[in-house]
Amino acid sequence: MDLPLAPGGRELPLLQRERPERSDAAHNREVLLRAAQELVEERGIDAVTMDDVARRACVGKGTLFRRFGTREGLMGQLLDHSEREWQAQVIGGPPPLGPGAPPMERLLAFGRSRVTLNLHHAELIEAARHPAARSFGALSFTTMHVRYLLEQLGVQGDVPYLATALVAPLEMIVLRQQVNREQVPLERIQAGWEDLVRRVVADH
Amino acid sequence: MDLPLAPGGRELPLLQRERPERSDAAHNREVLLRAAQELVEERGIDAVTMDDVARRACVGKGTLFRRFGTREGLMGQLLDHSEREWQAQVIGGPPPLGPGAPPMERLLAFGRSRVTLNLHHAELIEAARHPAARSFGALSFTTMHVRYLLEQLGVQGDVPYLATALVAPLEMIVLRQQVNREQVPLERIQAGWEDLVRRVVADH
Repeated sequence: MDLPLAPGGRELPLLQRERPERSDAAHNREVLLRAAQELVEERGIDAVTMDDVARRACVGKGTLFRRFGTREGLMGQLLDHSEREWQAQVIGGPPPLGPGAPPMERLLAFGRSRVTLNLHHAELIEAARHPAARSFGALSFTTMHVRYLLEQLGVQGDVPYLATALVAPLEMIVLRQQVNREQVPLERIQAGWEDLVRRVVADH
Repeated sequence: MDLPLAPGGRELPLLQRERPERSDAAHNREVLLRAAQELVEERGIDAVTMDDVARRACVGKGTLFRRFGTREGLMGQLLDHSEREWQAQVIGGPPPLGPGAPPMERLLAFGRSRVTLNLHHAELIEAARHPAARSFGALSFTTMHVRYLLEQLGVQGDVPYLATALVAPLEMIVLRQQVNREQVPLERIQAGWEDLVRRVVADH
């Protein structure tokens, strides 16, 4: 067997040798998730079957089930995928959500996009029959981002607390109550959050 | 059988005749819940057994199990009982939580007491192995109360949204993250919420 050698002359660790195959698997997974995401955007979650996803991705249904186990498993992976994509947009995407815009514009763009994202994620969680209604990882990311922007804005006081307080009304459980039970329009929620931010950020 | 007659001469409906007995049952239930509540306050939830509660209430253990089914059932009833008692304090208890104090004082008293109450309720929910991490009834009550006080304070803008936003950081899920994961002291949470309220209520 012709194994690649590390600069020191030793065999590269197994992890390195497996990389091409693992990369392929990751690529295939990405293709399947993208097909599922497209269909969800076009038709809504409930109208998307495993057959639809397999056909769109040009793979057999067996491949899909081998990869994700169940439709619930696929929806759970779609949730993670969507969260990671959104975080990438915040970290390095175009302004005003991404870097380059003034902090207040970024904060307001964050709130607008997080409202729609979390309502979408609430549906994915339901479709995934996920036990946890919230991901602590996602929460830490959003709270840290808001904290960073509040610091950029020179907000005085207990900035970590204020960041938590601004993220709290964007919780899925709160949004779902507003949208599904109280029938509050999305635009009113987004405008309300913007008003809240302006009150919190204003000089005191 | 000598049945009481309704004014029209007809027999009173069965529901009426059973009233004294149902009242007794309610009283007994209250006695058992109060015994459980005392013990929980003295020792903490985890240290309270069904035996302890039966002994404190001077009833047989069988009575307790017949009434509540399981220890989880008792803890679930204790949660409802605690929420109802707190709501009664808000509606008709002494100021500043109850009526009679200026609205800002009432609002701040509301936040302080709701933080400790919700942390206690989170423990009861865990002990009750309750499926729902939040009661929509309790949420509506708190949001309506905050909305009422914001109106009393003459706050301009989307007051229903602002009420929801102020109640959101008091959600058990948010408080548990702060207290259990981030080890934020209770006093800092209460002070942070007070600061948030003052920012939201300030003239704009």
